[in-house]
Amino acid sequence: MQKLEQLYEGKAKKVFKTEDPDQFIIEYKDDATAGNGEKKGTIVGKGVINNKMTATIFKMLEEKGIPTHFIELLSDNEQLVKAVTIFPLEVIIRNTAAGSICKRLPFEEGQALEAPIFEFCYKNDDYGDPVINDNHATALKLATQEELDAIREMTMKINEILKAYFLEKGINLIDFKIEFGKTNDGQIVLADEISPDTCRFWDVNTGEKLDKDRFRRDLGGIEEAYEEMLKRVNG
Amino acid sequence: MQKLEQLYEGKAKKVFKTEDPDQFIIEYKDDATAGNGEKKGTIVGKGVINNKMTATIFKMLEEKGIPTHFIELLSDNEQLVKAVTIFPLEVIIRNTAAGSICKRLPFEEGQALEAPIFEFCYKNDDYGDPVINDNHATALKLATQEELDAIREMTMKINEILKAYFLEKGINLIDFKIEFGKTNDGQIVLADEISPDTCRFWDVNTGEKLDKDRFRRDLGGIEEAYEEMLKRVNG
Ligand SMILES: Nc1ncnc2c1ncn2[C@@H]1O[C@H](COP(=O)(O)OP(=O)(O)O)[C@@H](O)[C@H]1O
Ligand SMILES: Nc1ncnc2c1ncn2[C@@H]1O[C@H](COP(=O)(O)OP(=O)(O)O)[C@@H](O)[C@H]1O
Ligand SMILES: [Mg+2]
Ligand SMILES: [Mg+2]
Repeated sequence: MQKLEQLYEGKAKKVFKTEDPDQFIIEYKDDATAGNGEKKGTIVGKGVINNKMTATIFKMLEEKGIPTHFIELLSDNEQLVKAVTIFPLEVIIRNTAAGSICKRLPFEEGQALEAPIFEFCYKNDDYGDPVINDNHATALKLATQEELDAIREMTMKINEILKAYFLEKGINLIDFKIEFGKTNDGQIVLADEISPDTCRFWDVNTGEKLDKDRFRRDLGGIEEAYEEMLKRVNG
Repeated sequence: MQKLEQLYEGKAKKVFKTEDPDQFIIEYKDDATAGNGEKKGTIVGKGVINNKMTATIFKMLEEKGIPTHFIELLSDNEQLVKAVTIFPLEVIIRNTAAGSICKRLPFEEGQALEAPIFEFCYKNDDYGDPVINDNHATALKLATQEELDAIREMTMKINEILKAYFLEKGINLIDFKIEFGKTNDGQIVLADEISPDTCRFWDVNTGEKLDKDRFRRDLGGIEEAYEEMLKRVNG
């Protein structure tokens, strides 16, 4: 499968057309940004790690009944995926409070949540990816109510699967952001990536952060944390 | 009924105990604030107008089956109400986009909405009354899911009643904020006020704003707008 025209270059990946209108190639980059692009840098090896980790996790999720865009790994930093139209929604689940929610609302970093907190954010850098509710999403025509309901249900399932999966690997899954898209034949599938860029991973024993917060908060040991996470996932 | 100890002085009203632990007296003030207290001023006659208008509207809502805290008018600027524990939620309904939603999200001021947009905000000045969803509200123990569902259902009914009520008076009900509380015997009732401080009222024919936006946006004719609204409501 050959890369044709580049469709999109985002903050962490590039998306290319292929000869098949139903398939895209995603190339993962080492570029890292934080705070809606205010902080920029490079995490050496990140593209390869996130490409491989996403592949492993999406395959595992497919086996557990979650439809995803993943087709196959093409190289260290490229994967073949189903072409989708992305819902402009950042779908967030929080099992423990951390990050932005502790600034926006009276939650303490590290505070365990009795039930997962589900959030829709409007994926729009100009507006700062604001938290929205279902009424906002339908009024802005980001998705229909039925699509929102389907996305919420899939996300709750994905969270249960991922929590157990990472716990086995000694990782506490604090929160994560996922994206969904619609294939050319109208199926809603999990798209984008699942990686230390998009999840908070805390070591169960030491509490050590093994995710992009090391970059956001200048904690050092960034590359090592990403490598450690790939080792835990790919064995 | 006598005012006893002052329980609370807010931005627009004071709340007093009475001899009956199930009843409070609310005194309406002329003080006006905007932008979470950044702008301060006085709207002469506002206390009297908002007290009278809230009384008329809450009575009308009771007759249509909505339980409210209203008991009776005591004077031009005082009313007797049921003592409640307020849910720290600002419950907002928008029929037309205006105000904060047009800054937070890509809506145009005056844009008609196909369906009403319902919002819960966390009533907390320190956090700037942020928009939240049901999961945030239950995690912060602001209300149970059952209480949120009851509040949402009552609010949708109130909106339908108020839209028709104001339309008869030549007013387009753009949006409003209401508060709910729980009485000592556990009933959820509409509390606080419904007035030009808490609603956007646009004249159906001229589009003229007859609400607190005249104060927020320095449009002049503030007192006249409040008086006009009381005339429309009280005939
Ligand atoms: N299967 C897919 N088909 C089309 N677009 C996708 C697919 N999976 C992810 N995308 C989109 O590709 C882009 C990935 O690049 P990324 O660097 O993460 O972008 P961004 O900076 O917008 O988050 C995102 O906009 C994402 O929504
Ligand atoms: N029936 C009631 N019992 C107890 N408190 C009430 C009742 N109705 C309204 N309140 C509360 O009284 C206060 C009214 O004063 P206001 O000036 O509007 O305050 P704020 O500046 O907090 O909005 C608000 O905190 C409101 O929630
Ligand atoms: Mg992205
Ligand atoms: Mg108030």
